[in-house]
Amino acid sequence: MDFKAISSKDNSLIKLVSALQKSAKSRRENGLFVLEGLRICDDASINGIQFDKLIVSESAKIKYENEVEKFAENSKECFTIPDSIFKKISDTQSPQGIIAVAKIPANNTEIDLNGRYIALENLSDPSNLGAVSRTAEALGVSGIIISDNSCDPYSPKVLRASMGTLLRMPVIIFTDFANEIKNSGLKSYACVVDRDAKSISQIDFTNGSVLIIGNEANGITNATKSVSNALITIKMSGKAESLNAAIAASIAMWEMMK
Amino acid sequence: MDFKAISSKDNSLIKLVSALQKSAKSRRENGLFVLEGLRICDDASINGIQFDKLIVSESAKIKYENEVEKFAENSKECFTIPDSIFKKISDTQSPQGIIAVAKIPANNTEIDLNGRYIALENLSDPSNLGAVSRTAEALGVSGIIISDNSCDPYSPKVLRASMGTLLRMPVIIFTDFANEIKNSGLKSYACVVDRDAKSISQIDFTNGSVLIIGNEANGITNATKSVSNALITIKMSGKAESLNAAIAASIAMWEMMK
Repeated sequence: MDFKAISSKDNSLIKLVSALQKSAKSRRENGLFVLEGLRICDDASINGIQFDKLIVSESAKIKYENEVEKFAENSKECFTIPDSIFKKISDTQSPQGIIAVAKIPANNTEIDLNGRYIALENLSDPSNLGAVSRTAEALGVSGIIISDNSCDPYSPKVLRASMGTLLRMPVIIFTDFANEIKNSGLKSYACVVDRDAKSISQIDFTNGSVLIIGNEANGITNATKSVSNALITIKMSGKAESLNAAIAASIAMWEMMK
Repeated sequence: MDFKAISSKDNSLIKLVSALQKSAKSRRENGLFVLEGLRICDDASINGIQFDKLIVSESAKIKYENEVEKFAENSKECFTIPDSIFKKISDTQSPQGIIAVAKIPANNTEIDLNGRYIALENLSDPSNLGAVSRTAEALGVSGIIISDNSCDPYSPKVLRASMGTLLRMPVIIFTDFANEIKNSGLKSYACVVDRDAKSISQIDFTNGSVLIIGNEANGITNATKSVSNALITIKMSGKAESLNAAIAASIAMWEMMK
């Protein structure tokens, strides 16, 4: 595979990668996202995500020769850039020198009516989305439903926090969350902080279920609560106001899956 | 309460606060820690933690007049400093302008033999320690046992991540972790990633129990495993290698407390 050399930070590909790293809008408009680092590029290749472009720093091309060769075979075009320019387009403090650009997978809207899903409404913290994905995969959850005003699952932060699991899990984006939950064919359980809601320990989860977790500060919207089959809660006895959203989601998924 | 004005960044108190913010060693040697921000200072006052010094920026003294007055009454000495110097000693990007210095509470070594504890061996990530503390309080866990080579519970990052809960929970430091677990009088359950270990769902937790969570990368030491009453595991069905430590601890605490 031939590597083209880019030497200017004003090159259009360099500018595109910078924009894709920083902006969800740019990712949406271009239909592309960035995979940075050995581990995530490896996860993506293994999961059949083809690269449009592979961009490696001059030193990474030598240091990670074998891996770079493998990634190059999975990419339509390959480029080398000076380490100094790589630093500018990296999203990390100590870049490994490997970036791939890939198409955002088409929105998978197929729901397995015998599955058990987690759905996130307006979740705003990238590390929470990453952690939920990691736990969901570990516990065998069927897929992750995300409202389109949640944080972007294809942002560098989320991909890192998910340790690549978001590239392996079915991810379904709902643009009209409450209505799509209502019409999903799944039995929906809205997790709320409310002493009067039914305790999650008392729920007998069956196949064809979806757990809903809301925004970190505001919880689940009234529209979504009103279409849910049940309001459920994780009973708390202490002084803390509520659990962290990723931890609440994890305890709830544990109850759903066991 | 009189406020003394400090105008030089070379003042010895300013230097002390900088050191306490940055270094666990300095906190240990001085027996002091820093509480930064309205919320944490408020949590600390409510929980009977007296301040040795209160340091407020000139603008915070005006902006948060009522709160500052209340904190001043809980402090032996009070100081104002220019906003520009406050920025230098703050641990946050957008400082509120309020810092208190307090004595690290004496190590509470009293264990309630009817309690249910979480113990952390060599936990290294401040946000994990903070999250564990938050969940422990929410679920009503009796206290947190921490090996002395874990991250420092009195670091600014941990205190922030715990949302003040570490100032309210009993915190017990074990300097000889495996032996102290062995001699604690509690039944100990070591959480491991091992398909052959007993599933946590099958454990019938009783009062007088302690769950042990290990280091993020290396798990629980052999010394501690060998003194534990049982090795237990959170059964996983997916591809992910393991759960995040704070999430594993949270699911385990949920099982212990329900």
